[in-house]
Amino acid sequence: MRGGDKKRVFGGLDLGGTKIQAVLLDEQGNVLSQARRVTPQKGGPPAILEELFGTLQEAARMVKLKPSELAGVGVGAPGAVDPVAGVLLHAGNLPGWDAPHPLAEVLSKKLNVPVFLGNDVQVAVAADARLGAGRPYQSLLGVWWGTGVGGGIYLAGRRWMGRGAAGEIGHMVVRRGGARCSCGRRGCMEAYAGRAAMERRARKAAERGEKTKLFSLMEKHGKDRLSSGIWLQALKQEDGLAERLIARAIRMLGAGVASAVNLLDVEAVIIGGGLGTRLGQPYVERIAEAMRPHLFVPQRPPDVRLSELGDLGGAIGAALLAQPSREGRSEARGSTRAHP
Amino acid sequence: MRGGDKKRVFGGLDLGGTKIQAVLLDEQGNVLSQARRVTPQKGGPPAILEELFGTLQEAARMVKLKPSELAGVGVGAPGAVDPVAGVLLHAGNLPGWDAPHPLAEVLSKKLNVPVFLGNDVQVAVAADARLGAGRPYQSLLGVWWGTGVGGGIYLAGRRWMGRGAAGEIGHMVVRRGGARCSCGRRGCMEAYAGRAAMERRARKAAERGEKTKLFSLMEKHGKDRLSSGIWLQALKQEDGLAERLIARAIRMLGAGVASAVNLLDVEAVIIGGGLGTRLGQPYVERIAEAMRPHLFVPQRPPDVRLSELGDLGGAIGAALLAQPSREGRSEARGSTRAHP
Repeated sequence: MRGGDKKRVFGGLDLGGTKIQAVLLDEQGNVLSQARRVTPQKGGPPAILEELFGTLQEAARMVKLKPSELAGVGVGAPGAVDPVAGVLLHAGNLPGWDAPHPLAEVLSKKLNVPVFLGNDVQVAVAADARLGAGRPYQSLLGVWWGTGVGGGIYLAGRRWMGRGAAGEIGHMVVRRGGARCSCGRRGCMEAYAGRAAMERRARKAAERGEKTKLFSLMEKHGKDRLSSGIWLQALKQEDGLAERLIARAIRMLGAGVASAVNLLDVEAVIIGGGLGTRLGQPYVERIAEAMRPHLFVPQRPPDVRLSELGDLGGAIGAALLAQPSREGRSEARGSTRAHP
Repeated sequence: MRGGDKKRVFGGLDLGGTKIQAVLLDEQGNVLSQARRVTPQKGGPPAILEELFGTLQEAARMVKLKPSELAGVGVGAPGAVDPVAGVLLHAGNLPGWDAPHPLAEVLSKKLNVPVFLGNDVQVAVAADARLGAGRPYQSLLGVWWGTGVGGGIYLAGRRWMGRGAAGEIGHMVVRRGGARCSCGRRGCMEAYAGRAAMERRARKAAERGEKTKLFSLMEKHGKDRLSSGIWLQALKQEDGLAERLIARAIRMLGAGVASAVNLLDVEAVIIGGGLGTRLGQPYVERIAEAMRPHLFVPQRPPDVRLSELGDLGGAIGAALLAQPSREGRSEARGSTRAHP
């Protein structure tokens, strides 16, 4: 296929703790098809790899392709990734994935095409930077508001990776000595704004007897945790606890993102991630408002925009990993390639 | 001179609230001579310009040059600078300098050589990045600890300016809703670690009756404010209040600088500025230690180094402004040139 006159098609897989999203992308970045499946909660890496294959196959079948006919496949995975070796080092969100695993190599053998691995947030930010809300800008900060708060940095049109771990905006300190974060440290923005942290706090409040619809909504929708959709439902029903915790999250996002803007003076901030996408534009505006009191140059704030690619951004960004002509040129790194 | 066989010599002027420092620099970055004078506290811009000229003339005379024989002169000034127009927009630290002033143009006519204007901290960081402690690194963060806390960013060997105002590390929020900063906002790192903020707090403590040698040392040395040297003296005498306020500043510097490192993952942090330079290596190590609990990748901290150019860094960096072949190549900006 590669030498032929058929168009090159790329596969992208967004591997999440609850779902696997696949897309096929043409060279212009158009989505040709997509499929979505539930992430296996049993069976560890082998079961997950089987389902990654199946989801991709399903998306390929819609456009009458076999996975082996793809020009390349990218996978965005949660947790620490060694992109050069294609190894998923650890992934706290993936059931049974508790040791480094050569995901790219194994999936590549299964598919018979090259497979590239990236961090899920990094690839989603890359997708929005290049094909979505970030297109008009040469410098931007992606803030992915979901289970945690991840980020990605584009400067002078290129992704800034540092020594491999740049963009950890969720672990900027917004209140030294403050709330305990899941990373073990204190006062990180994620300790206030991450959905996991918010759920922990909501559970404690409910246990103390505070009234909230959050957990009854969760049960009604057959979930075992507070998904972004549940938070949105609770906000729509004007649930006091949900409103209070979201307001607190937004205050801290405002301080943390404004701090990053004071440091980098980027043209734009793109808000994405599960919560960002689900809560949408009104909450993006609240974040912009919460940033304002902390901006060092308030008369010239950055544009604050909602991710345009939404739920598909992760899979689209993963597919871009397999297009070195697009992604390879757009990275700037420090001098070392070491990764945490 | 320009077309002749004489070596090109550049002048650099560091304009501070209390002193003016001049250096002459050859094309290799060697300091040929230097002079230092007190900043006039009366007479506003005309008096200050006269003294800038005089200090430079003094430095030039030592190597038997006239100011007009210099290949170019750079000035590093405190406050907001329009580097393209050469206008010092406002400078809170300079007595009587309360309106925008075309400093570069006026001084250029006086000297009969091209004059370039830059922000004092930015040029000092540039000097250390290229000729000092930053030389081994492709990416670094300069943290200039003085009256305020300023900064400068080098990524992939180039200065990152954003839309013109990048590097305001002192106004990263380390405690949302915390101490009032001189910028009017709350919880900025500078509100805890800036020397001006520390002095305000020390005065309040003294007024409340807390014992401290800070102000008697100040008077003994004929100062009317707590200079970096006074803080060092007080620390040497184990003054409890000085130790407490410096410890607090270091805690906040630790959180703020670590936050910036989590975002940018730079190879190195260079500590400079009046306090950084005066307190020196033991305090640089304390800052590195204070960063550690907040680093997202603690097993691979950045190198934390003391500025090598010390008090002369500002003037050396100013002289580099006049060498476009050195400085011009090393800037990366966003797409707009607007300046606050």
